[in-house]
Amino acid sequence: MAGGKAVGDSLKFDPSDDRAARLYELWGEIRDLQSAEDLLQWDQETQMPDGGVEGRAKVSATLAGLRHQRLTSPQLQDALAAGDELAAETEADGGVLGAQVAAARRQVERAVKVPEALVRQLAEAASNGLSAWRQAREAKDVSLFSDHLVRLVDLRRQEAAAISPGGNAYDAMLDAYEPGMTEAQLVPIFSHLQGALAELVQAVAESGVEVDESPVLGDYPVAAQEALGRELATAVGFDFDNGRLDLSTHPFCMGVHGGDVRMTWRHQQDDFRPAIFGILHETGHGLYEQGLPAAWHRTPLGEAVSLGIHESQSRLWENHVGRSRGFWRWAMPLLHRHLPGIDPAVDAERLWPLLHAVTPSLIRVEADEATYNLHVIVRFELERALFAGDLQVADLEGAWNDLYAASLGLRPADAAQGVLQDIHWSQGMFGYFPTYTLGTLTAAQLFAQANRDLGDQEAALARGELAPLLGWMRDRIHRHGCRFTAAELVQQATGRPLAADDLLAYLRSTVGEVYGLGA
Amino acid sequence: MAGGKAVGDSLKFDPSDDRAARLYELWGEIRDLQSAEDLLQWDQETQMPDGGVEGRAKVSATLAGLRHQRLTSPQLQDALAAGDELAAETEADGGVLGAQVAAARRQVERAVKVPEALVRQLAEAASNGLSAWRQAREAKDVSLFSDHLVRLVDLRRQEAAAISPGGNAYDAMLDAYEPGMTEAQLVPIFSHLQGALAELVQAVAESGVEVDESPVLGDYPVAAQEALGRELATAVGFDFDNGRLDLSTHPFCMGVHGGDVRMTWRHQQDDFRPAIFGILHETGHGLYEQGLPAAWHRTPLGEAVSLGIHESQSRLWENHVGRSRGFWRWAMPLLHRHLPGIDPAVDAERLWPLLHAVTPSLIRVEADEATYNLHVIVRFELERALFAGDLQVADLEGAWNDLYAASLGLRPADAAQGVLQDIHWSQGMFGYFPTYTLGTLTAAQLFAQANRDLGDQEAALARGELAPLLGWMRDRIHRHGCRFTAAELVQQATGRPLAADDLLAYLRSTVGEVYGLGA
Repeated sequence: MAGGKAVGDSLKFDPSDDRAARLYELWGEIRDLQSAEDLLQWDQETQMPDGGVEGRAKVSATLAGLRHQRLTSPQLQDALAAGDELAAETEADGGVLGAQVAAARRQVERAVKVPEALVRQLAEAASNGLSAWRQAREAKDVSLFSDHLVRLVDLRRQEAAAISPGGNAYDAMLDAYEPGMTEAQLVPIFSHLQGALAELVQAVAESGVEVDESPVLGDYPVAAQEALGRELATAVGFDFDNGRLDLSTHPFCMGVHGGDVRMTWRHQQDDFRPAIFGILHETGHGLYEQGLPAAWHRTPLGEAVSLGIHESQSRLWENHVGRSRGFWRWAMPLLHRHLPGIDPAVDAERLWPLLHAVTPSLIRVEADEATYNLHVIVRFELERALFAGDLQVADLEGAWNDLYAASLGLRPADAAQGVLQDIHWSQGMFGYFPTYTLGTLTAAQLFAQANRDLGDQEAALARGELAPLLGWMRDRIHRHGCRFTAAELVQQATGRPLAADDLLAYLRSTVGEVYGLGA
Repeated sequence: MAGGKAVGDSLKFDPSDDRAARLYELWGEIRDLQSAEDLLQWDQETQMPDGGVEGRAKVSATLAGLRHQRLTSPQLQDALAAGDELAAETEADGGVLGAQVAAARRQVERAVKVPEALVRQLAEAASNGLSAWRQAREAKDVSLFSDHLVRLVDLRRQEAAAISPGGNAYDAMLDAYEPGMTEAQLVPIFSHLQGALAELVQAVAESGVEVDESPVLGDYPVAAQEALGRELATAVGFDFDNGRLDLSTHPFCMGVHGGDVRMTWRHQQDDFRPAIFGILHETGHGLYEQGLPAAWHRTPLGEAVSLGIHESQSRLWENHVGRSRGFWRWAMPLLHRHLPGIDPAVDAERLWPLLHAVTPSLIRVEADEATYNLHVIVRFELERALFAGDLQVADLEGAWNDLYAASLGLRPADAAQGVLQDIHWSQGMFGYFPTYTLGTLTAAQLFAQANRDLGDQEAALARGELAPLLGWMRDRIHRHGCRFTAAELVQQATGRPLAADDLLAYLRSTVGEVYGLGA
């Protein structure tokens, strides 16, 4: 099951059914254009020379414009109508064709509301914004990026107005990443979580316990960290014959097309944890992409359902697996083999508290589990304000710094440690951050259910049995592509709607043990 | 002048002239699609995981199909007609707009004859062929690639029949790489050259002189070879802010789009010459791409004129510069600094004969200057026979081995050393090889003229004065894009048509000196 290649076959998709062939042909081209756009972006983040910015932005804009033309073409409308008719008279496929048509329609309906010129402007602005952000981040100077950000917010607000005239602009942004999710749904969830996390962080601070991190600090060669990361990713199930791992400024994972899933990483010389947990995180994303049914590649259903579900997979392998005692009971020999500088006396029991230490910090992607979602909520608040018109880009850095001071108790010394740390806004991705927290909640709920279904995973991981958990995810999540909504998947997999209690129980248990917080 | 950025401005192209704006807008999109295709191919050769083959082939086919649609669209025809009218009433631009329209028409006229379905089949077959070739080459087993080659030859013959019904199929292939060139023109040139080269190689064999290569053989770390190659490429004028250098199975250079020119290289552990002369070769290509006028990017004229002219630039820097005594008088300290294993007593005088040794061998890209064109002529003969229907793919390996035995006196031990050594046919590129020899002839003729115009380049290179020669090439070749034909450029730059005498004089002089062949 680990390969995931055969799973989709059971869903009775037959691309050779020539009555639906036109739909799949048209959709395949749309997906191909997306693949090319994705590869251009991966390349821009990992390979492209600085001088290529302007030319690359034009290529990206052209591809985005062509994809939009095809998403909004009368030919596709005809094919969808024919698909509807065919689906109504087809019973043998278990409703797959109907679901394919519906999935396509969701994208088409959003696309037809947005003028092509705006799509091109957005793509060009995102490509230029990415490069400007990278320079600004290096120079720690927001002013090198501000004009780009003003333009990106403006273009996205135009897009929101086109999609939902008079509606909530931020909801239109959220919907692109987490279909159906709204600001109104998020506010109470995030508010509850923020309160509970603040309490936990406060309790940690008052505990007086200090976690001694010196056992994991050292001088770790990049090549050794990479070798360890690759071995762990492979062990967990990532297939490097169908994927890659490269360095980048900002770690990410991209499913370019079937058989080509790319992860990136970055590292710190004196601490192996950012690299290793970063790679385990991206591996979770990569496993999901590699687990999407091969029979559905280049079809509307062959995509991840939402970024929240995507993030649930990365968080699961990074945190619930990667930070568990069991995993390190199994993986400890690998750690010592690749990083011989670590004190041989460090075993899973001594490592474990260092994986759950709570230390309010400035950088989201290196944050501990308890404070991580506080970082996300800062960005959620700022994005909401930007899109409501309550905050201007010129005031963003100050607002960022104030919120960090209030929420994390820290004020960034410079913009690279602050408002410029994340890549998302530079590419015009607003409404993306909340999916990280949705994913974190989902991961905890899925892992709790997997433990009930499969038995104690802590013990299984200690025996190096990683496949059953992946098989469970393949079955409950990966093989469905985007056939069901995120909410439906969570309900089907766990028997109840998404809630924060599994995450909070997990954090109170781990953090509570490390800091002696009592039951 | 070295940057080449401002050169095109003097040609009075004004992309903001809104009467011609539609033409430039449409053409820009066509060029953007080409850029995306180029990047996909670069990625496939340097980055893509093996599993991505099938998905990548579909993406490539879709992009090629879309580009073909746009090249053959009525909108473009209208824009070209408007461009013609406008050009007729515009005098201030020195004929640039008329030349733009003419350059576009050349591509359009070829495209409209080829059905889109065939274009897509060719793109998909080329993408799949590339991967099959790589596997076959690794396994030294032609059978893993034969079916792909049969299909590629068949598709190209269909293409030739569409372009020139009843005409010479091989001419239709040649025209794609060397516009206007025909088999009938090549046969006498190549025949003359083959005779003269065979005579020279024979004289070398009879001289009894053996060049002792041991002074340059050693154990050279890859990183040191790369560092030396990068320093030389930079010194010669390649701009790494607007380009890259990566490893690949088969070295190549690709101008993806403005500001993004990519070269690749490969190396041998025991001899630095393949890496260094390979990099100097690709640098010559890269300088041409970087020297195309920036004002013409994304316009019909903003392209290299032909592969023969392209190859003249690579051969010039690889051979006439890179294998000269003068260059190594200047570069010798770099060589010793990066490769300290070389005997310190090796100076330019002792190195020089080792750069002109003649040793018939099996691998084209590592061949010496005298035998190189014999390798090309073998391929030319085989391609002609394939396209005339006188040779079947099933008999290709045998025919290859027989021709090598007859021409070079060597028979390949396996297919990797023989018919599978080159990438070109795997991508359906037939008619490409002859441009290497055309380029070699052109390089010799251009270099001889540059010496007349600029004074003795041997002496200039010894002083590290590399810029004047590049400036001369920028002025005579690079800045014109594809405004003139290859034949016109050679005539304008050197005052006479292309001939073999400068190359033969150069080879007789260098090889003659090394082997004591007399005047």
